[in-house]
Parts: sequence; C-alpha cells; structure tokens
Amino acid sequence: MTKIDEMGARAKEASQEVAALSLEKRNAVLKQIARLLEEEHASIESANQKDLATAGDLTGPMQKRLTINASVLKGISSSLFSLIDLKDPLAGPYPSWVHETGFKIVKKTVPLGVVAMVYEARPNVTVDAAALAIKSGNAVILRGGKEAIQTNIALATLIQKALEQEGLNPAIVQLIEDTSHDSVNELLGLRKYVDVLIPRGSKGFIDFVVENAKVPVIETGAGNTHIFVDESADQEEALTVIVNAKTSKPAVCNAAEKLLVHEAIAADFLPKVVAALMEKGVEIRGDQAVQAIDSRVEAATDPDWETEYNDLIMAIHIVKDVDQAIDWINTYTTHHSETILSENAANVAKFMQQVDAAVVYQNVSSRFTDGFEFGFGAEIGISTQKLHARGPMGLPALTTIKYEVFGEGQVRN
Amino acid sequence: MTKIDEMGARAKEASQEVAALSLEKRNAVLKQIARLLEEEHASIESANQKDLATAGDLTGPMQKRLTINASVLKGISSSLFSLIDLKDPLAGPYPSWVHETGFKIVKKTVPLGVVAMVYEARPNVTVDAAALAIKSGNAVILRGGKEAIQTNIALATLIQKALEQEGLNPAIVQLIEDTSHDSVNELLGLRKYVDVLIPRGSKGFIDFVVENAKVPVIETGAGNTHIFVDESADQEEALTVIVNAKTSKPAVCNAAEKLLVHEAIAADFLPKVVAALMEKGVEIRGDQAVQAIDSRVEAATDPDWETEYNDLIMAIHIVKDVDQAIDWINTYTTHHSETILSENAANVAKFMQQVDAAVVYQNVSSRFTDGFEFGFGAEIGISTQKLHARGPMGLPALTTIKYEVFGEGQVRN
Repeated sequence: MTKIDEMGARAKEASQEVAALSLEKRNAVLKQIARLLEEEHASIESANQKDLATAGDLTGPMQKRLTINASVLKGISSSLFSLIDLKDPLAGPYPSWVHETGFKIVKKTVPLGVVAMVYEARPNVTVDAAALAIKSGNAVILRGGKEAIQTNIALATLIQKALEQEGLNPAIVQLIEDTSHDSVNELLGLRKYVDVLIPRGSKGFIDFVVENAKVPVIETGAGNTHIFVDESADQEEALTVIVNAKTSKPAVCNAAEKLLVHEAIAADFLPKVVAALMEKGVEIRGDQAVQAIDSRVEAATDPDWETEYNDLIMAIHIVKDVDQAIDWINTYTTHHSETILSENAANVAKFMQQVDAAVVYQNVSSRFTDGFEFGFGAEIGISTQKLHARGPMGLPALTTIKYEVFGEGQVRN
Repeated sequence: MTKIDEMGARAKEASQEVAALSLEKRNAVLKQIARLLEEEHASIESANQKDLATAGDLTGPMQKRLTINASVLKGISSSLFSLIDLKDPLAGPYPSWVHETGFKIVKKTVPLGVVAMVYEARPNVTVDAAALAIKSGNAVILRGGKEAIQTNIALATLIQKALEQEGLNPAIVQLIEDTSHDSVNELLGLRKYVDVLIPRGSKGFIDFVVENAKVPVIETGAGNTHIFVDESADQEEALTVIVNAKTSKPAVCNAAEKLLVHEAIAADFLPKVVAALMEKGVEIRGDQAVQAIDSRVEAATDPDWETEYNDLIMAIHIVKDVDQAIDWINTYTTHHSETILSENAANVAKFMQQVDAAVVYQNVSSRFTDGFEFGFGAEIGISTQKLHARGPMGLPALTTIKYEVFGEGQVRN
C-alpha cells in the first residue's frame, strides 16, 4: 500500500463515521474550527509567512490569493458561521412509496462518501472544502498547491485538532503533503476509495484531471464566456452590463471574455463599447471587420477565441444574426455562462434553448453565476459539465441517493 | 476528421433538433418505429438469421439473447407503447425564483444532448436505447456487439427511416458499424461531442470503459450481490427469499451471488439452505467453516468472493455479527444491491446505513432492483455509481438542468 492508498483507506473508514453524525454534531465541529482559527491565528499566519517568503516568483494577484491575514481569517470564520446556519443537506422528508407486493421503498439522501479536492494556491479552500464536506457528512482528501503547503499543513492540523476535540476520527479531513505531480496522478486512480474528485484551477489543469482521472470527476470553473449584443438590444443597458461583466472582477470564471455584436448595429455600437471598455483599462482585440470600424482595436488571432484571459482583455467579433452567434458560442464555449442582450423575444428564446451552457442570461451580467447569488448559501464550485450537477453547486452536489427497501419476505416471480 | 468524429458532429447537430421537439412529435416517432417494426419484421428477422448463422460459438443463453423472432419483436413493440404512455421527462413546472435585484432564475430540465451506448450481443437494446433517447430529447450514438451487427444495421436503418418519415434528421439515431475495438476506443475519447456514455455488459467490459473513458460515463450493472442472514432472521422466510434471489433468473445483475450467515445460526440454518438451493440445481461453494458444517459444499477460493457468477452457483461465508457482514460486503460489493434478512431493528438500521450500495434490502429479494419494479416505467440501466444517478435509472437520468436567467440590465457590484 502506498501512502495515498493508506489515506484513501482511512478516509473510507472515516466516511462511515461522519455520515452517521447528527446535524448538531457536524455543526459543532465547524464551530470548533472557527474557535481554533481565532485562538491559533498567530501560528497560521506564521506558517503563511513561510509560504510567502518562498513565493517571490508569484504575480501580485497570486500573492494576494496566497496571503492569510487577520481579515482573510475573519472571512473564513464568517463563512463557517454561514455554513452552520444552512439547513441539513441530508435531512428528509425522503420520497417513499409501496410496491404492489407490499414492501416500502425509501429514496434517501446520503453523503457521497469520500470527496477529493485538488486545487492551487488558495489556502482558504482548505478550510472551505473541509467545512463543506463535514456539513454534508463526507470525508475529504485535500491536495493543495505547493505554494501554500506550509499554510495548508497548519490549517489541516488545526481542523484535525477540532475533530479530535469533538471526539471524532481526524481522518475525516486529510491533507496530502506531497505536492509533486505523483500524488495527483495517484489520487486520480484511487477508484477504490474516492467517490468524487473536484478539481479547482486553470482550464489546462482541469482538462488534465478530466482526461486522466479514473475516479468520477466534477469539472468546474473554466469560463470562456460570451456576450451577444443583438440588433434589438437596449444599447445604454448593454454598455452597463458589458462593462460590469468584463471589468468588475476580471480574474474570475464568470467574467465576460468575448463580445459578439450583430452586424446591423456594429458601426454604431462598436465605437461606444470600445470607448467604455478602454476607459476601464481593457485591451480590445478583434478581427478585421471590427478593426475596420474602430482603429483602436488590436488584431485578434485564432487562439484568442478559445482563451479565458482572466484579465482586462476582451476580443470582439461581428455576427450576422442570432443563429451565427449561437453557432460561434457553441464552438468556443466552456459551457459556463453565456449572455444575450436583446429585446427580441424570439431571439432570446432561441438563444436560451440552443446555447449549451450551465447558465444562460438575458440582459443580466454573467458575474451573478455564483452559489451565493443563486441563493444556495454555499458554493462548492461551478460545474461546467452536465452529469450530477450543473452551474453553481451548493451542498446538495455533495450528496447522492440510496434506496432503502423494507419488506416481509417478498419475492419476484 | 475520422468517421467517428463525423458521427459525433452530426449527433451534436441533431441533438439541437430533437431537444426542441414537442412531446407529441417525440411520441409520433416512437409510434412510427413500432409501425415499421411490424411492417418490416421479415427483413429484420432475415438480418438476424445472418447473425445467428455465424454465431455457432455462442452458448445457449447468448444465442437466445441474440435471437429476434416474432415474440421478441412483439416485446419491443410493447415497450415502445409503454414508453409513449410515460409522462414527458422534460416537462415543467420548473423551479424559479427572483434575485434581490429583480432578475428571474428558472431551473429548467433539458436533455443531456448526445448519449452514447456501448453494449454487447442484445439487439433489442438498439431499439430500446434509441427510443429512450428520443423520448428524453437526446441524440444517440449506438455501438453494439459484432455478434448482432447485421440485426443492428437493419434496426438502425428502420429507426432512421421512421425519423425521416416524420421529417426529422436521421442522425438523431446513429449506429457505429465498425465493431472493432478501435471504434470503442475512439468513442471513449469523443469529449467534444458525447455528453454521456452508458456501457452495458460484463464487469470486465464496464471496468475497461470506466478506466479508459475521457467522456463522462455512467457505470451500470455489475452485481456481485450479497444476502446476510442475521441471527434474528425468520428462517422460513429467509429460505424463500434466498432461493428466489439466487434462482429465479440467475443470469441477471440483481440475482444473489453470495450468502453470509451469522455464526450463531450456521449449524442449524446452513444444511437447510444448502438443501433448498441444491434442489434448484445450485452449486454451493464455501470456506472451511461452511464445509465443516455441510460436506456437500465445495471449496471456495479467493476469486469466488469477487466473482459475479451470473449462473447457478452460490458461495457461502460465515460471519460473527452484522459488523463483520457489513465489512465483508463493503470489501467485495459492486455497489448494486445488498440484502439483510433480520428481525433486529438495530442491526437492520446499521446495515442500511453502512452498506455502500445503490439499493439495500431488508427481508426482500434483490431481484426487485429494476426500473419497472421501482415504478419508473422505463429503465436505462442500473447505476452502480453515486454521481448523477444511482440504482435503477428512469428517463430523468437522461436529462440535466440549465439555468435560464431573465433580467433588465442587472449588474453585480
């Protein structure tokens, strides 16, 4: 047995214990974690300092994501208390019915079992993922990025302490300390123990996981999202929505990356939208037709159309009609969030039906694709696949069903 | 583009068309298929004769599965009419709610898109899978076994004729005529076009698919199912349930394969159950403790415990208590159906909670694990995984959700 195998076996065993806990007990663990985060904040911050000291190569935004300070800890703690307030994702009433021979079938909601999370340099995910797993009755195996390893070890140790203080098996939450590729590869093959693996990170990383995993995976997050401005769009409103979707938080997956403009309004609308975006510091790229209308636009090349910039860059393309917009989007979409700005009901209906994405918007900024904004009270991630969960995932995404059948000796003829 | 790639592209395009059809139109296609099966039964049967003529190597049960005659065609036709009567799996009302800024979120039920089915020598699956896909608004790519290829070609041609007669794209249902391993391998990598792949076949085949697929897969069917006879079991009832679960249809996945007996009743109960099973022609295997009690029992070896016999063979093992039974089952289960025969409420509750299977029975034959017996009116297969669908799968397993958001220019701060 390798070390990862042993962790899998321990997680599987621990999953029985956490699945059987009352809601009160699961919430008590979360409270204990919050308490320890406050008590032991100094040791977490000092571990984080070690990570930051060796993180000289990281860009500013990455350094920021890696940093744990008093205000980040306060945010983590307040997430824990929000999670405590959420209703039990395992609670009934469960659907049930009686077979003609008299036995009863109960369709119960149960935890998935062992959840694995693989993520990059965001140590807050360590607490977040552990807390979501515990609240939904699952054991979890965490594999964070090497940039955050000291912080992650400190946080995982603290969480295990909280579990032990509540008299529980610390293997309910385990961290893989080996940050080499080998540990990820091994985790991807751990079919015997892992019920679902959720990767968080760049599109390249998620593709790697999906292509190589033998365990069940929920794809999350990659967002090459488009906005189509129809001929009938309210142009003032369109400018507001586009600027918000592109610039309010450009590094996240629900930010807009591409703009498609109906040819009938291109000459009029393009200079206005280019000006509004440039004013916010956005670099605009486009094909020749776009450049012909507005010379401030730089040339787009083929890779632009499939790239998620996560930055203040937007590429623009002109389309003939809603059908061409739909075809274009279905060619390049990462199935996350897609938007039509239009007052034409027929075009909106067609776009809603035919665009293959988790969330399709009419006249709303795609920045709302988010578990909290959708009212789920928590977010495991944004699923861009169709099986099990799609779009923002709340706690129910970490559960499955189990049929329990109770009878008196019924047999089948 | 390879041939399979082209089929994928055509299926993706056709999936838009079938997704937009009214329930009436989808049902009209099913009716048309039923009509053509009656009209053209002679050509189907003659294609089937060609397959049977080259199937000399197959065992009796396999030959039987491969055969299409008047009575099989009648069965297929009556399945089509049952499917027509089922309610629309895509129909609303859909949950919807309003965000605090005033936009509306609708959680719609939509088809998965392109479903791929890979199966062995059962040509009835060709019609069945096509019909389930059409009813749920999906396009489907079928890849049947080489033993049934002539029959499958005839059936797929007939289904495409029905689609064309209804004015629809025949690529809604496509059959891969290449029965080499290459075509399966290519299908497993077709991430661009295939939304879900459902394999049907032996455990070895399904494991191969799960380990090699890059497309999303729903694991189905493998059933190494156990029955645990607790100390408190009603022994007369236990004999009836065990004999039914083992012998009423031994070749199917919900038939019992293993028997665990509580040590406190072993000396008394084992000779009775061995006699009852042997009377039905079942070969009994067991470890030394079982053989010591009943000398008619043959020796079981390690592979026995993980083998799905699909035959009149049963292996027996003695356990100390319900905990040991649960551990044993969780070690060897294929997560399909597991049974406890017991009158002890605490043991039943523990078994129900801790056994990791789609369906867990108390005092009922596991032969009831079936979409029709569960009241779903249809069956895509029995999912032995936890994501998306678990246990018998009805039409909803071929659907997913999509969030449609309607607003008036809302942006996120």
